[in-house]
Amino acid sequence: MAIFVALRSPEVEVIGLTTVYGNVYTTLATRNALHLLEIAGRTDIPVAEGSHVTITNGTKLRIADFVHGADGLGNQNFPPPNGKPIEQSAVDFLIEQANLYPGEVTVVALGPLTNVALAIERDPSFAKKIGQIVLLGGAFSVNGNVNPAAEANIFGDPDAADVVFTSGADVLAVGINVTHQVIMTDADREKLARSGGKFAQYLCRILDVYFAYHREAYFMNGVYLHDPTAILAAINPSLVTITEGVVRVQTTGITGGLTILYNRQKRFAEVTEWSDKPVVKVAVTVDAHAVVKLMMERLMDS
Amino acid sequence: MAIFVALRSPEVEVIGLTTVYGNVYTTLATRNALHLLEIAGRTDIPVAEGSHVTITNGTKLRIADFVHGADGLGNQNFPPPNGKPIEQSAVDFLIEQANLYPGEVTVVALGPLTNVALAIERDPSFAKKIGQIVLLGGAFSVNGNVNPAAEANIFGDPDAADVVFTSGADVLAVGINVTHQVIMTDADREKLARSGGKFAQYLCRILDVYFAYHREAYFMNGVYLHDPTAILAAINPSLVTITEGVVRVQTTGITGGLTILYNRQKRFAEVTEWSDKPVVKVAVTVDAHAVVKLMMERLMDS
Repeated sequence: MAIFVALRSPEVEVIGLTTVYGNVYTTLATRNALHLLEIAGRTDIPVAEGSHVTITNGTKLRIADFVHGADGLGNQNFPPPNGKPIEQSAVDFLIEQANLYPGEVTVVALGPLTNVALAIERDPSFAKKIGQIVLLGGAFSVNGNVNPAAEANIFGDPDAADVVFTSGADVLAVGINVTHQVIMTDADREKLARSGGKFAQYLCRILDVYFAYHREAYFMNGVYLHDPTAILAAINPSLVTITEGVVRVQTTGITGGLTILYNRQKRFAEVTEWSDKPVVKVAVTVDAHAVVKLMMERLMDS
Repeated sequence: MAIFVALRSPEVEVIGLTTVYGNVYTTLATRNALHLLEIAGRTDIPVAEGSHVTITNGTKLRIADFVHGADGLGNQNFPPPNGKPIEQSAVDFLIEQANLYPGEVTVVALGPLTNVALAIERDPSFAKKIGQIVLLGGAFSVNGNVNPAAEANIFGDPDAADVVFTSGADVLAVGINVTHQVIMTDADREKLARSGGKFAQYLCRILDVYFAYHREAYFMNGVYLHDPTAILAAINPSLVTITEGVVRVQTTGITGGLTILYNRQKRFAEVTEWSDKPVVKVAVTVDAHAVVKLMMERLMDS
């Protein structure tokens, strides 16, 4: 949904898709990215395959394949894509683009932050050369969605997330404290289904698994629009309000993947792990109605 | 303040004080407990000295002596007490009292939870024989006061706190998300000072350091009534509203001492560290005006 929204947004020039594990393994994410660009008729856009492991070379990945189906696309048995990813890795692609267009490239990171963290570690100038990193991740002052502590994208690679949050880059975090307010209802889905839009038709086909997952996990007849909210916040920052502060990630133990934002309301007596770290932006409220409306419009406009 | 409030509360029979480290080391806490009972003319109440180390035998304690002064009593050079603690340790005393009066004893735990956790570990029936454990601790959905993650009492012995929260005892946690709403102003202090109450007079003498600490750390002219709120919540539960859920404590890493309450709004796909653990009560709102008023009344009534 987020990719289609981006492709249908006149404010955006999509210069590439990079892939990572999360709801599926990276190899399948790459196939799906190529497939979606073929559906959209945008095979001119390069797909750069990302890391298959966490930044600490962790290979025991959490793949949440129960959210969107085993194929990540609603178990629809789509044929394999014709295209191939570019030779360049996601990390090299990110570094190259940041250097080609300093300050102009926005990374909308919708999965674990492995590729972005590796780019930051490999190129010391990346954090300052990249325009903005809008990331879907974190559960600020609310329960997580993997467990009570952690949100899925941060949980996927907590060490990478901590690198990104403390990198000095211009980061906007859109967490589930915000995206859980943005809900697509059954009625919205029916409206999509009735529209003639190519993207709307495609999405209605793959959304069944995602709706079933929300009925099971959240007891609700609707789905959270996590990724569309992040991409629309990147396109139109006025859709969210933000606070600023230092964010650190717990990387181990029962709350591994937890994000803690220091709100600067207390001057601590002791030096803390938040002291003297760069400040990031964290979304705190969202105009949920406007996000749903904008997403629907862009998807139905064929 | 909390001890004086308890001694002046007709609903309460104070059957003993147990001590622990926190704002001072345990040895000094014991001296201060004896001193306060002498000030109050209640040397009939036993003082049982608690643990000098964490439940994992940690000896590197965090002693926050900048909150109430090096002596824990506003640096007032009080003479040493005449009395002595009883021979029994705090842990043995807690276990004995719970067995003597099953279901009738309330533990109001105002420091790190070492003694309570040791009682739970040493006597398997303690968690069910103790009446209620009202604990001052945790920072639920808000920043901590030691660092952005952790509240001081939980931070003092995170392992002990996790034992208590998961013990199956009837636990009510009163965290800084609640106690930061209960503020004693300069005007309240002047009112105390003008009253003829013995306890009020004594407290006004020792409160300067605590007020200075709040100006420095919180930029405010007032002090948080953490401990009085906990004791009054134990006396009159209607002063707070609660939620129920499983609480776990992160015991390691940069968020060590963090408390996470699972609010049960999501059914997680995977087993989590919160699954199948006993439920506790957590205070979520407080009638701050009523708490301050009640505390003032009890302290001024000489």
